[in-house]
Amino acid sequence: MRVAFIGLGNMGQPLVRNLLKAGHEVLVYNRTRSRAEELAREGARIASTPAEACASGVVLTMLADDRALEETVFGARGILGALPAGGAHISLSTISTAFAQRLAEAHREKKQHYVSAPVFGRPEAAAAARLVVVAAGPAEAIERCRPLLEAFSRKVFIIGPEAPAANIVKLAGNFLIAAMLESLGEAFALVRKSGVDPAQFLEILNGSLFQSPIYENYGKIIVERRYEPAGFKLLLGLKDIRLALAAADAAAAPMPLASLLRDHLLARAAQGHGEMDWASLAEVAAQNAGLPA
Amino acid sequence: MRVAFIGLGNMGQPLVRNLLKAGHEVLVYNRTRSRAEELAREGARIASTPAEACASGVVLTMLADDRALEETVFGARGILGALPAGGAHISLSTISTAFAQRLAEAHREKKQHYVSAPVFGRPEAAAAARLVVVAAGPAEAIERCRPLLEAFSRKVFIIGPEAPAANIVKLAGNFLIAAMLESLGEAFALVRKSGVDPAQFLEILNGSLFQSPIYENYGKIIVERRYEPAGFKLLLGLKDIRLALAAADAAAAPMPLASLLRDHLLARAAQGHGEMDWASLAEVAAQNAGLPA
Amino acid sequence: MRVAFIGLGNMGQPLVRNLLKAGHEVLVYNRTRSRAEELAREGARIASTPAEACASGVVLTMLADDRALEETVFGARGILGALPAGGAHISLSTISTAFAQRLAEAHREKKQHYVSAPVFGRPEAAAAARLVVVAAGPAEAIERCRPLLEAFSRKVFIIGPEAPAANIVKLAGNFLIAAMLESLGEAFALVRKSGVDPAQFLEILNGSLFQSPIYENYGKIIVERRYEPAGFKLLLGLKDIRLALAAADAAAAPMPLASLLRDHLLARAAQGHGEMDWASLAEVAAQNAGLPA
Amino acid sequence: MRVAFIGLGNMGQPLVRNLLKAGHEVLVYNRTRSRAEELAREGARIASTPAEACASGVVLTMLADDRALEETVFGARGILGALPAGGAHISLSTISTAFAQRLAEAHREKKQHYVSAPVFGRPEAAAAARLVVVAAGPAEAIERCRPLLEAFSRKVFIIGPEAPAANIVKLAGNFLIAAMLESLGEAFALVRKSGVDPAQFLEILNGSLFQSPIYENYGKIIVERRYEPAGFKLLLGLKDIRLALAAADAAAAPMPLASLLRDHLLARAAQGHGEMDWASLAEVAAQNAGLPA
Repeated sequence: MRVAFIGLGNMGQPLVRNLLKAGHEVLVYNRTRSRAEELAREGARIASTPAEACASGVVLTMLADDRALEETVFGARGILGALPAGGAHISLSTISTAFAQRLAEAHREKKQHYVSAPVFGRPEAAAAARLVVVAAGPAEAIERCRPLLEAFSRKVFIIGPEAPAANIVKLAGNFLIAAMLESLGEAFALVRKSGVDPAQFLEILNGSLFQSPIYENYGKIIVERRYEPAGFKLLLGLKDIRLALAAADAAAAPMPLASLLRDHLLARAAQGHGEMDWASLAEVAAQNAGLPA
Repeated sequence: MRVAFIGLGNMGQPLVRNLLKAGHEVLVYNRTRSRAEELAREGARIASTPAEACASGVVLTMLADDRALEETVFGARGILGALPAGGAHISLSTISTAFAQRLAEAHREKKQHYVSAPVFGRPEAAAAARLVVVAAGPAEAIERCRPLLEAFSRKVFIIGPEAPAANIVKLAGNFLIAAMLESLGEAFALVRKSGVDPAQFLEILNGSLFQSPIYENYGKIIVERRYEPAGFKLLLGLKDIRLALAAADAAAAPMPLASLLRDHLLARAAQGHGEMDWASLAEVAAQNAGLPA
Repeated sequence: MRVAFIGLGNMGQPLVRNLLKAGHEVLVYNRTRSRAEELAREGARIASTPAEACASGVVLTMLADDRALEETVFGARGILGALPAGGAHISLSTISTAFAQRLAEAHREKKQHYVSAPVFGRPEAAAAARLVVVAAGPAEAIERCRPLLEAFSRKVFIIGPEAPAANIVKLAGNFLIAAMLESLGEAFALVRKSGVDPAQFLEILNGSLFQSPIYENYGKIIVERRYEPAGFKLLLGLKDIRLALAAADAAAAPMPLASLLRDHLLARAAQGHGEMDWASLAEVAAQNAGLPA
Repeated sequence: MRVAFIGLGNMGQPLVRNLLKAGHEVLVYNRTRSRAEELAREGARIASTPAEACASGVVLTMLADDRALEETVFGARGILGALPAGGAHISLSTISTAFAQRLAEAHREKKQHYVSAPVFGRPEAAAAARLVVVAAGPAEAIERCRPLLEAFSRKVFIIGPEAPAANIVKLAGNFLIAAMLESLGEAFALVRKSGVDPAQFLEILNGSLFQSPIYENYGKIIVERRYEPAGFKLLLGLKDIRLALAAADAAAAPMPLASLLRDHLLARAAQGHGEMDWASLAEVAAQNAGLPA
């Protein structure tokens, strides 16, 4: 299948590799061209504008935030003006539900299809084609693009026809992960200051209480306090919690735990740790307990 | 092995059944005698005071809180005065770390052994001999009693010689579960008010994000809003979070998420819902979002 | 002095009356014309568009939020296109610091002056010409307009040349008031449930501890639970705390108490109480304590 | 009038001086005798045990916490055994409501009177005889001791016959002050990081918004970041917020803002700043905003 892919960051690059591996023809675009060139050596072709990338009729985007995607879609030589009628834009980015709504409407007006298909998983999972995709939008567009999504995921969940619903699920999911990080941070600070070995405590959590790969994975990072290099940067996590709070505000659903997470992530950012892995949220509790950094 | 068991509530009863099933001779005591009589029909013998139960030299206690255990140990005809030197008291209850410390000292003075061995798991798990035990105290006492603990558990973790360390682990563990309940409550309120099917959201959590039996189990209760009959009463959960906060205060480790949990559990109790399952903590977020009760 | 006034709500109307009383010629505009007509009977003249109102060269605006002011300034027949070079726009509204920045830049480009001059005080204070004004912007524009500001205030504070600084002060001030409301709400819930007379407690606060008119004023409303008619609607208070949090986010200054206020105000709004006075924030603590509504 | 005074710390010493100045005969006791000797040079007489001090029939106590008062009342040679029937114990300390209840009962059993009379005000106010006293207990005992209380206060409020009610008022009052400190801390962090002069902001608060001596006083300390020497130590403030939370728990009145205060005070203590003035609670917000210490 011919497909365009825009946004070649930590996540975008391994996704393109998996698309190529699955036999798709991929036309890539990235603002910083060098990242596209790496992929060209592995079989991708390079487009020089988002518009040029749209010729294939199906475009996947994986960008950092609303603003980057806005420029790519609505900007000069953007997707909106170039995608043919009947074409589909699949947005893999974690964006606001309000912006997802605006994208759905703008594409519909141009007789194009818009699908929100945010993904769960870190770069390692992207490389291993083990992401989880949550898709919402017009059913036929999802079906058409399913082979693309399956090229890099272990599971595709389809939520329904309203695109923003997939973004809500993604934001609620990331909120749950951040809540887990905060709870682990506080629990480990308590355990440490009470003279209990945190590694032993983690073993109990993994072996019996939660038995969950994500607790195991993040628990290990926190016990070892190994936050660099970042799998998922704290600043991106802060962005996602902001988006969850914006969605909660729009829905009139107060989320005090999300507020606490935002405040702790913001403190880490204000103190200059925004580039660390977001698991370092756990360091807020350690710092407040007077534990050495 | 001959063993005494004191405290025949929702947890104590199935534990005794498992001890009997494993071939141990069990002498039971309960303040309300009728609960002991049920077990007598299944092979247990009945003691009429805690002191009388202690003759066997090994006594397991499973009581509601510090106060109940204090009366049983330090009261007239209590354990402390009756347990022979060299005897062992294994406390399965969720008690404060300060009280565990006091028990350890009091028993040591009498040349008795004290082991804190709190358990994770609800009554169903107790019945199925699937609890997880976290034990701390004198190594030889733990080894001696291990067959008893194994009679009702799928896993026994040994923390070390200081009894209160096991209580810290238990309290930190229950804090993590309550944090999960709060996070699920907020996430489901957001999802519901945004028009996404909560059951579908739960399926995604279970099938990919957390893949954890405890998320699955509690997630189901919350999605169905089925909080009665209670597996674990909210008032007991409130007690445990209070104990976690007391331990955190003693260790000078601030736990703002634990504070939030205490406040929400206390609000539920103040509004008359203390007898429901503690998963109903999730209803705080639903109520604050204006969702119908 | 000749001046235009746009926005004739609960605050705008008494302000115009005070301007008239001080002898100024006032040209008024309001989207709903009837409110302008009331003032016409008292000496004001009516403009039929914002643009028409701008002829005088000085325009005061008092509107509900960023969106209303954006339409009035940037919309068709808006202020920006109509105000003569050298003219001044004095914005009395509580708006975001980001939007104040945008206004300052847009007016500067047109060689117009922009002054942020938000006010503290409720409608009664506006009527009594007892508001407190916090002004920031070009010094000569502030000096020129000072007689206008003094017509309805007891005090004008001048912050400096950067307009958004006045908005920061206003938002931080409203945050402090809301924090006072929350603290009173929690204190009164404690006092009530402990069997102490809240009126007596309030007397102690006023007579000795705080001796502050604003504690006295709001304390009385809360003790009497008399939240209607609203002097300042909860929904407007919620808007202001949102703006304070947005400013805090932009400045990377976490404000957990502001987060708590936002969540409690949002819960009141979600439960259908957004039209009450924002002092009803105190009812969140009462409700959580199980006190009758 | 003849009176005993026990507890000669920062508050006790100036209180005794004011009693002497008003012409009362004062018998003092302090665990560390040197502090009593200072007062002996000013006319007080020294007792060598609490019991000995009780001969006068009226004893005032001003001690650090429940534990210190417990020892003084219930310990060997304590007040309870020595105070004559009909005698009165006036406790000025900030203690728990539960302990006030226990004191009331213990004294009643001995036919003695117990009055809770906690005070608002810092050492300077104590020296200037400007404290505010909140008294509760048997009416005739309060009337009898009123001249003593008036010797060091500008106002005596009488709450009613139930002693713990005065302690509730004191704890709720201190909670309100701490809430003010937190709100000022967050507001000043926002203002500072937004480039607004905090002294100017404080001037606005004092001159118009709050017009309250306590805001002025503490606002100045926070703007100048001058937390030493402590007028009231952070560790004592932490103790008081713990007591407020304990009272709130007993009354089933959740106080999330009090929880936040406790967590922030505890973090300051864990980081080694417990001896500073409790106004340094404001530094938590500054630190989280990344402002230099």
